[in-house]
Amino acid sequence: MSEFRTIWTTADRNVEVIDQRKLPHEYTVVKLTTYKEAEMAIKAMIVRGAPLIGATAAYGIYLAVREMIEKQLDGTFLDQAFSDLRASRPTAVNLFWALDKMRAAIDNSDDFLETSWRMAGEIVEEDVETCRMIGVHGLPLIEEIAKRKAGETVNILTHCNAGMLGCVEWGTITAPVYQAMKKGIKVHVWVDETRPRNQGSNLTAYELTRHNVPHTLIVDNAGGHLMQHGMVDLVIVGTDRTTRQGDVANKIGTYLKALAAQDNKIPFYVALPSTTIDWTIRDGLKEIPIEERDQDEVRYMIGKNQESGKIESVLICPETTPASNYGFDVTPARFITKLITERGVCDASEAGLTTLFPEMKTE
Amino acid sequence: MSEFRTIWTTADRNVEVIDQRKLPHEYTVVKLTTYKEAEMAIKAMIVRGAPLIGATAAYGIYLAVREMIEKQLDGTFLDQAFSDLRASRPTAVNLFWALDKMRAAIDNSDDFLETSWRMAGEIVEEDVETCRMIGVHGLPLIEEIAKRKAGETVNILTHCNAGMLGCVEWGTITAPVYQAMKKGIKVHVWVDETRPRNQGSNLTAYELTRHNVPHTLIVDNAGGHLMQHGMVDLVIVGTDRTTRQGDVANKIGTYLKALAAQDNKIPFYVALPSTTIDWTIRDGLKEIPIEERDQDEVRYMIGKNQESGKIESVLICPETTPASNYGFDVTPARFITKLITERGVCDASEAGLTTLFPEMKTE
Repeated sequence: MSEFRTIWTTADRNVEVIDQRKLPHEYTVVKLTTYKEAEMAIKAMIVRGAPLIGATAAYGIYLAVREMIEKQLDGTFLDQAFSDLRASRPTAVNLFWALDKMRAAIDNSDDFLETSWRMAGEIVEEDVETCRMIGVHGLPLIEEIAKRKAGETVNILTHCNAGMLGCVEWGTITAPVYQAMKKGIKVHVWVDETRPRNQGSNLTAYELTRHNVPHTLIVDNAGGHLMQHGMVDLVIVGTDRTTRQGDVANKIGTYLKALAAQDNKIPFYVALPSTTIDWTIRDGLKEIPIEERDQDEVRYMIGKNQESGKIESVLICPETTPASNYGFDVTPARFITKLITERGVCDASEAGLTTLFPEMKTE
Repeated sequence: MSEFRTIWTTADRNVEVIDQRKLPHEYTVVKLTTYKEAEMAIKAMIVRGAPLIGATAAYGIYLAVREMIEKQLDGTFLDQAFSDLRASRPTAVNLFWALDKMRAAIDNSDDFLETSWRMAGEIVEEDVETCRMIGVHGLPLIEEIAKRKAGETVNILTHCNAGMLGCVEWGTITAPVYQAMKKGIKVHVWVDETRPRNQGSNLTAYELTRHNVPHTLIVDNAGGHLMQHGMVDLVIVGTDRTTRQGDVANKIGTYLKALAAQDNKIPFYVALPSTTIDWTIRDGLKEIPIEERDQDEVRYMIGKNQESGKIESVLICPETTPASNYGFDVTPARFITKLITERGVCDASEAGLTTLFPEMKTE
């Protein structure tokens, strides 16, 4: 659907990614020719978003295999590559999943180079297909509102970036939006800035701009007011981790939007690839540890200085004021209207999830 | 109580205010010598906060009277000053109250200059006393929690700046906090950044720093998470306008914190001078118009560039992305545990308010 992806291969069988640290101000492509460069791209957050990290690591293994063969190194080099890439972002579940898949494929193959090339490609295409299917299943939810509004614009609010930039193509929450656009439905997206790292204003606004989706940036404080005044028809957010009972951990602030959606009887949807479901836990509030990040992400703001044209950061509080920086919050299932997965739409509950994923049923 | 105020008069009978746009990075004083300068100070947000806007407008009228006399202008000049100052901020009910008070005093006087000088001074001193009394009445609410926590730190969350910088001295929400400190109660304040204008990180953090109150800056997204995890004991916010039934219009995002407080059974208090009560309206959501401000307040962030040492702004979204910027939202009375006024504490309802203000009873 898209004229661009977040990761792609070149004719000389190298890999290229967008340097997302410079978005939306600069579009820069970084070429990855060794696994060490792939590792650096993950570590330095040139790439971000669980599916994209997995895809980058998979191609990192392909690059390691190639280097091993070219330099006639032994298997310890490849083992080192697996271990370095595994440690590149310690909490990313997709990363481990992608590396395990690469390991199994290589171990069952005689042609390491072709196998690793093919498997990395499959991991990428699998993400594209997963996101596409989330779009297919999410589309009717937007169509229904469009029908009720008799052709008037459907206003969608989202928080953070669960768009294509965290994936390969389509994205999770953006997939239904792009599908609706293709169907000729008039949509407009309210983009939460998403402090402190501004993934909304930096990334979601960027990709909506590139896809010509009408959108408006708002501060994270504004959603409640818009909902009180009928300016939001539905909310869609992504999730970093989903529990068996349908609680979701997503970017800090998601819970506040869920509260406002409920108070104003606005549907609150969570779009997710099933790889984010952690079937081993139930109570998100008790069982999901919330990462605390560097306080300077709160104390400083990063943007493009219009005078110098450079990307710079500015201090927004007294020099001595400390800050707290929890990265995520948990939205309990009771606030979620429906979960949208690649297999379909379901209630945010164990019964709902295991209807779509019967293989995960326990007695 | 404080070593500094936000507005004061000089020996040559002019008025000085702090340029709050430069806080917390620079402390600069602006001298106001004409009503047009007072109007500009309000419009440009050199001064902000309902009581301080009222006080500035009151002195603006004094300055207009002086100019009228000095230049031998007729009453239409003074009428123009009233009308310009009245239009300088749309939501500030204190502004109208202060101007009405000035009008009445002048209309009943033979000596316009002395009367307007004296009345503006009275408006200022009345604010100081009002805030002090809000502190007296709010203190027991903090004491009660301190007692229950057996001396452990009481954690207070606030949004925007309803501190002394919005008033003259003491502040509204900070008055109970400063009183608690004086009593030896251990307090800690979670300071909401308050995008887009960052009154929390710029002003509340500044005045808490100057008064040695332990505090931590958080993004506006974080409050819900903190409340879910028992890290907030009470919320206190201010209000720009309060309706007869106890709805409050306060800085955008207040409503989201009220929702989270209710969901987590945390008391949500609104501290207000009774001048913010608009007795002529009931339903805040329907009857309070919400000001829309310049979209660049959202698209840019202002802070101190650590390299240049200058206060600069940085763009945080694509060049073409538009933004929406509603200044306030309305928190319905049903979310408010108690209102704290200079006359005492009451329920957020018409019955509650008219118990404290029986003169406003209808029937």
